[in-house]
Amino acid sequence: MDVDALRAGTPGCRHRIHLNNAGAALMSQTTLDAVVGHLRLEAEIGGYEAAGAAAGRVAAVYSGLAELLGGRADEIALFDNATHAWQAAFYAVPLRAGDRVLTGRNEYGSNVLAYLQAARRVGAEVVVVPNDEHGQIDTQALAALIDDRTKLIGLTHVPTAGGLVNPAAAVGRVARAAGVPYLLDATQSVGQFPVDVTEIGCDLLCGTGRKFLRGPRGTGFLWVRDGILDRLDPHIVEIQSAEWDGARGFGWVPGARRFATWELNYAAVLGLGAAVDQALNLGLVEIGKRNAELGDRMRGLLEDTPGVTVYDLGREQCAIVTAKLDGVASERVVARLAEYGVNVTSTVPAHQQFDTEDRDPPPLVRFSPHYYNTEDEVEHAAALVGAMVDKPV
Amino acid sequence: MDVDALRAGTPGCRHRIHLNNAGAALMSQTTLDAVVGHLRLEAEIGGYEAAGAAAGRVAAVYSGLAELLGGRADEIALFDNATHAWQAAFYAVPLRAGDRVLTGRNEYGSNVLAYLQAARRVGAEVVVVPNDEHGQIDTQALAALIDDRTKLIGLTHVPTAGGLVNPAAAVGRVARAAGVPYLLDATQSVGQFPVDVTEIGCDLLCGTGRKFLRGPRGTGFLWVRDGILDRLDPHIVEIQSAEWDGARGFGWVPGARRFATWELNYAAVLGLGAAVDQALNLGLVEIGKRNAELGDRMRGLLEDTPGVTVYDLGREQCAIVTAKLDGVASERVVARLAEYGVNVTSTVPAHQQFDTEDRDPPPLVRFSPHYYNTEDEVEHAAALVGAMVDKPV
Repeated sequence: MDVDALRAGTPGCRHRIHLNNAGAALMSQTTLDAVVGHLRLEAEIGGYEAAGAAAGRVAAVYSGLAELLGGRADEIALFDNATHAWQAAFYAVPLRAGDRVLTGRNEYGSNVLAYLQAARRVGAEVVVVPNDEHGQIDTQALAALIDDRTKLIGLTHVPTAGGLVNPAAAVGRVARAAGVPYLLDATQSVGQFPVDVTEIGCDLLCGTGRKFLRGPRGTGFLWVRDGILDRLDPHIVEIQSAEWDGARGFGWVPGARRFATWELNYAAVLGLGAAVDQALNLGLVEIGKRNAELGDRMRGLLEDTPGVTVYDLGREQCAIVTAKLDGVASERVVARLAEYGVNVTSTVPAHQQFDTEDRDPPPLVRFSPHYYNTEDEVEHAAALVGAMVDKPV
Repeated sequence: MDVDALRAGTPGCRHRIHLNNAGAALMSQTTLDAVVGHLRLEAEIGGYEAAGAAAGRVAAVYSGLAELLGGRADEIALFDNATHAWQAAFYAVPLRAGDRVLTGRNEYGSNVLAYLQAARRVGAEVVVVPNDEHGQIDTQALAALIDDRTKLIGLTHVPTAGGLVNPAAAVGRVARAAGVPYLLDATQSVGQFPVDVTEIGCDLLCGTGRKFLRGPRGTGFLWVRDGILDRLDPHIVEIQSAEWDGARGFGWVPGARRFATWELNYAAVLGLGAAVDQALNLGLVEIGKRNAELGDRMRGLLEDTPGVTVYDLGREQCAIVTAKLDGVASERVVARLAEYGVNVTSTVPAHQQFDTEDRDPPPLVRFSPHYYNTEDEVEHAAALVGAMVDKPV
């Protein structure tokens, strides 16, 4: 991987040490040009007319995402964010009183709230599968918890607040053996390392454009295994997801597009497509390898820094690194690093409810390098952090 | 209104005769610059960091929309499109078997499908209020249909497929007298002429950025009267719409933001803000006056053209004009006008189901001028249409 060339094609590398890729990664110039180019076309010839002119390239975004995930283009629906995509999947799962949703301890906050809403609304039961000794979801415990009441396994692949990579494929084997639908929230994993729906064995997978895929903000996607469609009832309907029957009924359109809601920001969609193409061209295996190295390096440096405690769980860990500095609030560390041109962010314990009720971590500083970061940048950030320990002002 | 100056500030006016403003209007250079400027900033300093830098301007988008609609900033939620906004409102209305939703005959297709879904899902009853002799919703019939079972009045202000302006304020008086929640779909009216929630007396109002507001694609908004919040239960939940209670429950955040789903495309949001500011600066009364004149001119010319039949309903009519040409399919007219650089579109009868089951209109050619169009453009388009009558090839 030619990191220098990738950095030269990434405007932000000239301005910041960007270690907030788990928030939103830096777009490449190519991706930015794809978005801006379409916006200019919209302004010149009209929004609908520009979409018509770009129809082929828009269709290619679906096939690009399908290639990235190992699915089919008609199994992809586009959204404005990963949460809308996840909601389209989760709320389409029919749940009744006594039905069970099994999830992990490191589930993403919005997903947790939706589970709690299902509990409140219909009396579904939310079961949090314990972690194993590595801090990842315990797949044996998961298998033991499945029974006839289990209507869904919902899992966050990589949590927003830590380096953990949950064993998604092992969970997939359990789900398939039991015939239970499996929804994987891959928001933090797609683009960071290879994520293949066939290998994982999930039925539904959501992701975002803006994080490790390096796409624009305001893009998200859902992959829905064609064979699971009959077991799902989309919770909302509109003119492109369904067809009127001529009387007082309607039928869903084929494929995953029954989950989407018209209209899309096509400029952002084309930027997502450019970002997906870039990831495919670089190769997810290569990307994943470098990201793991940068994450290990970042984590190792912080672990070796006196007064810094790393909080990451998991047997397999990724490019997200979370840590607490003695004597200084994480929000303050974020602000001070920003003064040095280093972008990081801090975690919100209320956004990882089941982890918080277990470990009760404080707000942590989250470092998330990506392949275009350099080892020097990682080392510089770690050195700055070391100098901040026990300096609260 | 200085039309020449407005055209000079609208790149598309140099390229097309754009009469598809009911599809997506032409962005001004100022709006385009707002979007592109933020995208560049995101690429330079990071997506989250750019949002932080623009926080004040993002907040101003809420207050700008509030000023435009006559509501409060905390009553506004932002979405990626008007349909998501409308869904957030409609699906939050608790409906049970036997509950009634009253709607109009010219309701928008996606809304109709959602009503039919509520009928199928919970056994709610959808009642289509007849039109009066002008072809607008009959407010006396509406009042007579309201009873204890009525849980919502849902109305499309201006339909997607015709010049009708429904008497939204008269409907509001009926709704308020009966104490029934009133959801107005103002997708085609906001930006076209003054739309004031107090004057109208609605409880919920949705709109889009891309149409007569001249904002970017991929933007929508919902206004929710603060006093109606207690009667609504948002159908989805996520980390910014609700707060975890520390155990296995949650509470909604104050105001309308409980209906929104993180995250937003902030570049598009800022473009929406620029478009709203532009509309406010021009003045909606002025905009509405010119649009009514251009609509009347377009309609009058087509009515006077042999072989052309205008289909618009309504006592009050707006800048949307729909017509059928003898002997030539509307889709073909659209394609041929495009060859002359004239942007129009054609209607889809299945997207206006209740009108179709009543009048059964064919696909129509839809002309929708906006204030920056000239009388010459309208006349040129009408002349081209006249020359196409009975020429199917």
